[in-house]
Amino acid sequence: MNKCWLRCTRCSRKTDFRLIGKCPECRGTLLVEYDMDQARPTFTKKNLSRRSEASLWRYHELLPIHSPKSAVSLGEGWTPLVRLPSLEARLGLKRALVKREEQNPTGSFKARGFAVAVSLLSERGIAKAAVPSNGNAASAFAAYAARAGIEAHVFLPRDCPPLIVEECRLYGAHTTLVDGMIHDAGQRIDALQAEQGWFNAGTLREPGRVEGKKTMGFEIAEQFGWKLPDVIVYPTGGGSGIIGLWKAFNELQALGLVDGCLPRLISVQEEGCRPIVDAMASAPSPADSGAERTASPTGMRVPLPPDLDLLVSILGKTGGTAVAVGQDEIRSAQRTWGTCGISASPEGAATLAGLLKLREAQGIDPDETVVLFNTSHALKYLTPLSTGTHE
Amino acid sequence: MNKCWLRCTRCSRKTDFRLIGKCPECRGTLLVEYDMDQARPTFTKKNLSRRSEASLWRYHELLPIHSPKSAVSLGEGWTPLVRLPSLEARLGLKRALVKREEQNPTGSFKARGFAVAVSLLSERGIAKAAVPSNGNAASAFAAYAARAGIEAHVFLPRDCPPLIVEECRLYGAHTTLVDGMIHDAGQRIDALQAEQGWFNAGTLREPGRVEGKKTMGFEIAEQFGWKLPDVIVYPTGGGSGIIGLWKAFNELQALGLVDGCLPRLISVQEEGCRPIVDAMASAPSPADSGAERTASPTGMRVPLPPDLDLLVSILGKTGGTAVAVGQDEIRSAQRTWGTCGISASPEGAATLAGLLKLREAQGIDPDETVVLFNTSHALKYLTPLSTGTHE
Repeated sequence: MNKCWLRCTRCSRKTDFRLIGKCPECRGTLLVEYDMDQARPTFTKKNLSRRSEASLWRYHELLPIHSPKSAVSLGEGWTPLVRLPSLEARLGLKRALVKREEQNPTGSFKARGFAVAVSLLSERGIAKAAVPSNGNAASAFAAYAARAGIEAHVFLPRDCPPLIVEECRLYGAHTTLVDGMIHDAGQRIDALQAEQGWFNAGTLREPGRVEGKKTMGFEIAEQFGWKLPDVIVYPTGGGSGIIGLWKAFNELQALGLVDGCLPRLISVQEEGCRPIVDAMASAPSPADSGAERTASPTGMRVPLPPDLDLLVSILGKTGGTAVAVGQDEIRSAQRTWGTCGISASPEGAATLAGLLKLREAQGIDPDETVVLFNTSHALKYLTPLSTGTHE
Repeated sequence: MNKCWLRCTRCSRKTDFRLIGKCPECRGTLLVEYDMDQARPTFTKKNLSRRSEASLWRYHELLPIHSPKSAVSLGEGWTPLVRLPSLEARLGLKRALVKREEQNPTGSFKARGFAVAVSLLSERGIAKAAVPSNGNAASAFAAYAARAGIEAHVFLPRDCPPLIVEECRLYGAHTTLVDGMIHDAGQRIDALQAEQGWFNAGTLREPGRVEGKKTMGFEIAEQFGWKLPDVIVYPTGGGSGIIGLWKAFNELQALGLVDGCLPRLISVQEEGCRPIVDAMASAPSPADSGAERTASPTGMRVPLPPDLDLLVSILGKTGGTAVAVGQDEIRSAQRTWGTCGISASPEGAATLAGLLKLREAQGIDPDETVVLFNTSHALKYLTPLSTGTHE
């Protein structure tokens, strides 16, 4: 393993690498830093182009596990980046592409974070762990925990997609539905973890999930021939994906593998739960004011992101923004994805709806290259009850 | 494009390459043959190892489209081949691996066949096409047709998985549910195609689907470092996958890229619809005798495979066999897959159930390397109505 340590994003203090997510001094978010001089000789464009691992482990120098041999892997990462000619024509954009994260194991981008996080738990012999989730994080954690022989406990809002609940059970996870939001699920874990001996692998509680998500940024850079796109549109809930993308591009810059401006990162949320959008506008969030959250139960519905300040800071540094879209816009965008031959989850559909909104507001130029993230399959959210299919 | 033509598997007559599936002379199945002398200089281990396309199009020399540029691609192929240590321990096997075909676009292996078939239709300007299917072929066809701007008509048995029907609609396909089996759906297309101007892209009706499926065999060879496994266990319905695997290994042998014995191919079917198993045993099939078919509505339920003789011949040539498993065995195997962190469709679960049966019958030696195919996600077949999830 390359030498690495943790650095607080708030007070900049350096800490030895451990499975903690918050700075012991100031409670800021801790992120992994690597000895770039150690990584530089092997983490090169030429070496990477010759690696046969079609998975996120091709980037092992910049992942915090001891050895590639201890990777808990189910075939995650190195997902397709597919050009979208019909969308380009419709939106008057030079280049639009989709990163098909639904082609990961467990059918979602959450596989990346848990491949790395569970590898870290496994290396340390942790036997039981718990995760609060809106769905896909729970099922991804359940799958990797099963693979590693770790006892998995997942807590989800009662209204989250029933098929994903079923999926958690399929992987053998102890699955509990909770009244309320994802932070209510998190509080249940907080209350039980000491007594039960669970490791809490919730968002930004340990360094592995951001590191796993970071590989999305490495892949975009490599798949684009080390020239970054202008804009990345990303559905955002807890925010570890945004943090990971930003971290990836900074690490590639530090290694001299990319140069110029970083992509503008655009977070998309759903109306009814838009804390990042409100924070970017310096407006009080309905979550803060106690107003009802009316957003649908998707991965974007996170009223209290663990580090909102960090997200706002990252979006601002990249020249990006955050936009909110309505349920009708999401449904309409899902149909548009369908006409492209893509099965998009509500989160992936929101991403397209956000792009449409930004194009209308002239927030994206026609000659820019845009990457959209589709984070999961439409199917995981469908209910066959709505199927009125007859001849 | 490399030079190619069609060869009848029954009478060996050569025909110009066209979008037909049956020999004009004897009605035997036509398969594509390539000028191997033309392919040999570029289709080499070294060249392939340096190709960056993480998709089936990395094998373009042995695919019948005019140019890689005309490929209708959604990011198909080059799926993970994942080792299964817990299964190896349980079964006393040296090496067992799963080819995760559910990580294809549309969440199933059917994406491969339709990527190639729809590319062929698109190159010829075909505007409307139809497919009979048990589910995943229909949704894969629908997605690629949407991508290519081809009007898609799909016909499925009324009892096929409702979520997959919903998926077909998401891609904009004209979707019709039919009383009966997949051949009844096929008859509906036969009756309508002339009047409607549809191209019929059913199993073995055109050469593209087998060519697309064939890439599974190329990938296994390349992912194994050009040493083939001893046994491949594959869920079988219409049989284009078995034909494709066998064709792939023969082509690799002809190019000198692999040598020694070909893998034994094992077809798995479900009790209640087992024409290949019966034909291998030279027993009259319930399908022939008109008995009721009680198998579940999965891709394996094909009472009348389009070319049973060819399948029997291929399985025999490889030293393989066909086994039937019951619904309880499939359900149990699906749970076993879950404990491995894998979400397996009933077809993928049947594959594992078949392997368990063969191991018990000592049909596979402990020191053999076995590849199992998981062809789709469990989720596509689940019904949330069965979810009784409460705290």
